[in-house]
Amino acid sequence: MPSKVIVQKYGGSSVANVECIENVARRVVDSAKKGNRLVVVVSAMGDTTDELLELSSKINPSPSEREMDMLVSTGEQTSCALLAMAIHKRGLEAISFTGPQVGIITDTFHTKAKILRIETARIKEELKRNKIVIVAGFQGISTALEITTLGRGGSDLSAVAMAASLGADMCEIYTDVEGIFTADPRIVSDARKLRYITFDEMLELAARGAQVMQTRAVEVAKKFNIPLAVRSSFNKKEGTIIMEKTPYIEEPVVRGVALTENEAKVTLCNVPDKPGIAARIFNHLAKEHINVDMIVQNVSHKRMTDISFTVPKSSLSKAIKTSRRLSKGIGIKKVIFDENIAKVSVVGVGMRSHSGVAAKCFSVLAKNKINIEMISTSEISISCVVQKNCGKRALKVLHKEFKLDKIKS
Amino acid sequence: MPSKVIVQKYGGSSVANVECIENVARRVVDSAKKGNRLVVVVSAMGDTTDELLELSSKINPSPSEREMDMLVSTGEQTSCALLAMAIHKRGLEAISFTGPQVGIITDTFHTKAKILRIETARIKEELKRNKIVIVAGFQGISTALEITTLGRGGSDLSAVAMAASLGADMCEIYTDVEGIFTADPRIVSDARKLRYITFDEMLELAARGAQVMQTRAVEVAKKFNIPLAVRSSFNKKEGTIIMEKTPYIEEPVVRGVALTENEAKVTLCNVPDKPGIAARIFNHLAKEHINVDMIVQNVSHKRMTDISFTVPKSSLSKAIKTSRRLSKGIGIKKVIFDENIAKVSVVGVGMRSHSGVAAKCFSVLAKNKINIEMISTSEISISCVVQKNCGKRALKVLHKEFKLDKIKS
Repeated sequence: MPSKVIVQKYGGSSVANVECIENVARRVVDSAKKGNRLVVVVSAMGDTTDELLELSSKINPSPSEREMDMLVSTGEQTSCALLAMAIHKRGLEAISFTGPQVGIITDTFHTKAKILRIETARIKEELKRNKIVIVAGFQGISTALEITTLGRGGSDLSAVAMAASLGADMCEIYTDVEGIFTADPRIVSDARKLRYITFDEMLELAARGAQVMQTRAVEVAKKFNIPLAVRSSFNKKEGTIIMEKTPYIEEPVVRGVALTENEAKVTLCNVPDKPGIAARIFNHLAKEHINVDMIVQNVSHKRMTDISFTVPKSSLSKAIKTSRRLSKGIGIKKVIFDENIAKVSVVGVGMRSHSGVAAKCFSVLAKNKINIEMISTSEISISCVVQKNCGKRALKVLHKEFKLDKIKS
Repeated sequence: MPSKVIVQKYGGSSVANVECIENVARRVVDSAKKGNRLVVVVSAMGDTTDELLELSSKINPSPSEREMDMLVSTGEQTSCALLAMAIHKRGLEAISFTGPQVGIITDTFHTKAKILRIETARIKEELKRNKIVIVAGFQGISTALEITTLGRGGSDLSAVAMAASLGADMCEIYTDVEGIFTADPRIVSDARKLRYITFDEMLELAARGAQVMQTRAVEVAKKFNIPLAVRSSFNKKEGTIIMEKTPYIEEPVVRGVALTENEAKVTLCNVPDKPGIAARIFNHLAKEHINVDMIVQNVSHKRMTDISFTVPKSSLSKAIKTSRRLSKGIGIKKVIFDENIAKVSVVGVGMRSHSGVAAKCFSVLAKNKINIEMISTSEISISCVVQKNCGKRALKVLHKEFKLDKIKS
């Protein structure tokens, strides 16, 4: 039987110092000795990237993005060479590669490049020679032959894309948390670790504030149907497997709840109810690269309506400016905003076949005297905007209501 | 008139921190504003390379050389990106490249690779676009597509090879000394900075203990006839130009003196005076990679002779072991050695046309009661081995005797 191909990814906190790198080497060696063929993707050591950013900011407060990529890509190159040495010490063969070297081909958008393809010939050759292949995450080479980086969470993406290109059996993401939880355990103390979660649920949770996995990486894993195991690099506990379909016969209605306090609400008051107005507004916001999340428009009265939407707080002032500029031409009366909001969401594929979940959400919030300001639903999620000081409490009562504290993990 | 192409090289101490990098950027910009087309080769910042070596030694005391090259090559990549940013801040266009990126092709000997060729197409293209090109020194890409480093002094070599490949008008080596001196100023307080020195003299001085320029870099400069300017990166003083022929009509007889205390002397006593013995001995030493410097054999008495040679102290024990093993078969009576020696040398192309230089050397040493243990001469140099505690004094009296303290620099 041919051996399994597994891609493992270790984040910055997992390779933060010599001791951590030794720990990762032990894990990699253990997995290799079980007969697996391994490709290991590593991030830069701990705070290396931040230190390089600080160094560059001293020299040039607005450095060229191309040179930023040259600079920060050294971080992963360092950690992957050191990990190779640590594996050699344990008697196994290993070889490290930079992203450009191994053929992670990206577009030309420096500091936020997209992977176009991965040339796997060299990796496959080394795997055939029974070597553990170590690859610098977060980086690639552009079609213009420049060093590029993939932006936030890029190493997860490197790992998943690598797994997809190699047709790997599994992609294991090692991190400083033990897996995906029914809620953020720092807020909900009886949050339970999930054994399985579907790609769709993970994507919904990530979009709604869960911070374990980057959306981009999960999207690629879903597209190529590569199961993702999220585990701690500091203990041997089973983590969470993110996959297309969980092995359960019947899914729970709600898999998890999420909270975000990073958004703000903008409301355009008395918008003329004519075709094309909404398109015009959101086209302009998109042009300004403002990432709009929830959009709510209700039925109109006297041919006037209100449109509300949420944006990341960091984009709020730009969103207000853009909205006010448009308002004059369109005849919108007023643009108001509120930064003191929180968004709570419940997510679960089981909702598809269960009715009454929304009603249950609204009831429990009402029972707890939490006022709902905006509602938005998708096929597998329900999100409510509430006042910021109610956010954490809303999360807790929803978690309890859907008995997530009773899940067997 | 087409503008001059100049290659500048800044060593580790010249880019040790943010302030130093800013200083280098100012110099580069000044030179570019004079209309020169510039390629700037940089070393890693200050102690970066040593820090990386220390980190690796904690993980693996005998790391793979391939992975060492992966690791340490990050140092120059960092400094060249930062220098590009510092130049951008001053409003000029600049672009940085790693050695592999720019096509510095080497053989496959990791940590001590030799440059085979440099593919200059990309550099020429960027120069044409009026950009200052910054290249990471000390590194390249092997014919097996691996990252390689060039070993000690490799950045000087990168710069000179780059200048040769581009057909540059000049290669400027910026360092922490002001140029080439008639003697080491730390020993001879009235040593004078030379305005010019020939390649041959520089090579002789370097081989005999002067530590400013690496021999490999000077050899390449000589081969391609690229004038080398050695200057301080910390002041505006004129440095020394190393070139094929100085502009002087008549050369001084002696250009400089050098001292090395890093060698030891081995003497094979009572060697049978038969053909092939010397060849056999030095072949064996070469096979053991022992770098033999001076070799002295005198006329024989009763068909027996003594052969003495010097080796770096670090190779002494290997040299003794090899010599003693051979002695038995050949019938050599005894192998003795002396670590307490120093070698003083006088160097100058003017010797070619002047007689009496050797006699003058021996006289001044004798007058100062310094005993000569070995003598070796080349066309442009004379070296004497003396007892170690006389070395510095020998250097000073020779410097004075040849009036090097009176040279107009």
